[in-house]
Amino acid sequence: MKRPIHGGNLAWAAARAGCAPSLILDFSASINPLGPPKCAIAAIESHLDKLVAYPEPDYYPLRVALSQLHPTLNPDWILPGNGSAELLTWAARELSQLAETIILTPAFSDYQRALRAFNARIRACLLFGSHPFVEFVGAKHSRPDLSVFYPNFNANASPNAQSPITNYQSPDYQSPIPKLVSGKDQGLLLNNPHNPTGQLWDTANLLPYLEQFALVVVDEAFMDFLPPDQQQSLIPWVQDYPNLVILRSLTKFYSLPGLRLGYAIAHPERLQRWQQWRDPWSVNVLAVAAGRAVVQDQAFQQQTWDWLPAARSLLFQGLLSLPGLHPYPSAANFLLVRSEYSCSQLQEDLLKYHRILIRDCLSFPELGDGYFRVAIRTQGDNQRLLDALKAVISYEL
Amino acid sequence: MKRPIHGGNLAWAAARAGCAPSLILDFSASINPLGPPKCAIAAIESHLDKLVAYPEPDYYPLRVALSQLHPTLNPDWILPGNGSAELLTWAARELSQLAETIILTPAFSDYQRALRAFNARIRACLLFGSHPFVEFVGAKHSRPDLSVFYPNFNANASPNAQSPITNYQSPDYQSPIPKLVSGKDQGLLLNNPHNPTGQLWDTANLLPYLEQFALVVVDEAFMDFLPPDQQQSLIPWVQDYPNLVILRSLTKFYSLPGLRLGYAIAHPERLQRWQQWRDPWSVNVLAVAAGRAVVQDQAFQQQTWDWLPAARSLLFQGLLSLPGLHPYPSAANFLLVRSEYSCSQLQEDLLKYHRILIRDCLSFPELGDGYFRVAIRTQGDNQRLLDALKAVISYEL
Repeated sequence: MKRPIHGGNLAWAAARAGCAPSLILDFSASINPLGPPKCAIAAIESHLDKLVAYPEPDYYPLRVALSQLHPTLNPDWILPGNGSAELLTWAARELSQLAETIILTPAFSDYQRALRAFNARIRACLLFGSHPFVEFVGAKHSRPDLSVFYPNFNANASPNAQSPITNYQSPDYQSPIPKLVSGKDQGLLLNNPHNPTGQLWDTANLLPYLEQFALVVVDEAFMDFLPPDQQQSLIPWVQDYPNLVILRSLTKFYSLPGLRLGYAIAHPERLQRWQQWRDPWSVNVLAVAAGRAVVQDQAFQQQTWDWLPAARSLLFQGLLSLPGLHPYPSAANFLLVRSEYSCSQLQEDLLKYHRILIRDCLSFPELGDGYFRVAIRTQGDNQRLLDALKAVISYEL
Repeated sequence: MKRPIHGGNLAWAAARAGCAPSLILDFSASINPLGPPKCAIAAIESHLDKLVAYPEPDYYPLRVALSQLHPTLNPDWILPGNGSAELLTWAARELSQLAETIILTPAFSDYQRALRAFNARIRACLLFGSHPFVEFVGAKHSRPDLSVFYPNFNANASPNAQSPITNYQSPDYQSPIPKLVSGKDQGLLLNNPHNPTGQLWDTANLLPYLEQFALVVVDEAFMDFLPPDQQQSLIPWVQDYPNLVILRSLTKFYSLPGLRLGYAIAHPERLQRWQQWRDPWSVNVLAVAAGRAVVQDQAFQQQTWDWLPAARSLLFQGLLSLPGLHPYPSAANFLLVRSEYSCSQLQEDLLKYHRILIRDCLSFPELGDGYFRVAIRTQGDNQRLLDALKAVISYEL
């Protein structure tokens, strides 16, 4: 079985670990460990008798439900998809008609998949330009100097010291977004928060791009992990900018990646065009039922917003305290970690001896074997990861 | 709400009928009324706890299961999709690279959707050329002369006489397939059995196309409704012709259109290319579970093959006995009916007074308001349709 290029491939992991996929503790896919909410499973169970009929091609009731998450939007500005990955395909179909599309690397590898499907011309811009991040890439085994990237970060503190940055809340921790020079026939595809770094940009920093580029596609797959008052979404600007497309996932926050459900927010004319391109029934009826249910579940949403900052902070601290591991502050439900050990070896050992799967970064060529990514899970799971990492690292030392 | 261009739109029908969608008796979507098989629902229920993980992108266990339906094929020759409609999209992506693609009209409207998504050049060939079918189109209100189309058919028999053609089994009833002249850079997209006519062509008649066309895509969405010894599938030829693609549906026969599951059969290199184009997780995990279960359910398969010929024969006879309705012999689980009444009016009346939905043919420009299509359902449902049609027609007369 080939090494997967995405997280969450439990069949591959199970084959390496020599156990059943259900026994793997998965830190490689960035899925909310608190879900799925009970209302989602109940909705699915109560709609099994609806499988005998086709989905309703306009998905109007689901659009209405989703518009409750975004009260400024009419349902026509929302298009559900078979996961946001399906919608990325059609966004890339549009981007391919431009002279070229800029992506900020390291980037989610599915961006290249989608753009290449339509022979789009891709220009990769290193995310941090003349920025310390580049130094990390070039000098994987030196301790990162986060002082420019995150001004409050004390790069010289001992690994066991309490870092002042255990939680991601202040714009002080923001990396400057690159100043991109663009022509009028260029597209831009980026994500916010950024995967795999967890970096969040202020909307104010992104707004100039909307004036600059012919089409801006912002993947906000992890934005809903931030409480509403901390989100830096471009959704409030979508009605002012017909050249803006926002992609959202529902299956990471609500822990239903196996069901497939995401949505795009863009000008209705653009979304109607996508509907004419794609097949009429791309979202299955159980995903529709679950989607309509979960958007109402404010208790689950609050529970997630309450869980994440503390859990992330503890895991960040724990990783920082391990010799040779250097986690990056993150606004999302995952942490990127620079490692002084080979990460494919760490991954292998964690699988074999602990049945834990971490996300190697081999599919991000700018990162390679010196980095891994882990999801934030429950406190018990996170501690299991830290204990396993400690054991594996002590074996390496 | 706009008039739908596909069958099975219960939300639209319910709005017209002024009742809940679940109260509509749906003859517009050609779905097996005996399903879904219990094993499918059981498989879905037992996999709800798997929704927290991504589907396995290679879908290998599902490919293996599907290859049991086609014992000559290695799993690499099979690619599951989010309904065969998703796979049609990628087939059309390939066809669009040719100089033009021929479709035989009247054709399933989704063919044009998929081809247009990639700006493919489409050449529509009237299916029956200088054939009685064209006369039907030109003279909707004359009684069709099926004597050439179906040599054994007695066009002059009284509508109430027992027709010799109540079941579709003999190649005697075959329409000649058009002799298409093609260049080397042309594609062909057709379906067998044909929708909406129900026409089945012998594989022998299709084989010359494989020599003629650069790419031949055969949609066999309804082929599994024929018992294996009567199927006229091109699957046995796929290993000899790398320019052949076969599309199969699982959700019509197994009554799961809301779940979305189909598959393509073609050369592994082609299928790998499609996988690089499309998103990695297009088939949801519940569809995977249901698919793996249903292919094993030989009892359900046999039950369907036992039910269909008799039910189709009775419905055919019943329609033939109604004044002004002229059903066509069909190999599939639906019947095309020429009507001397406006079919949109029939549809409206059936919805309003009987909560029955039939498929108008307005989306087939070659057919228009003089034709409708009905699925074959259980004997009780079929009788309810016949009684309702009788009542509605008597009101028209």
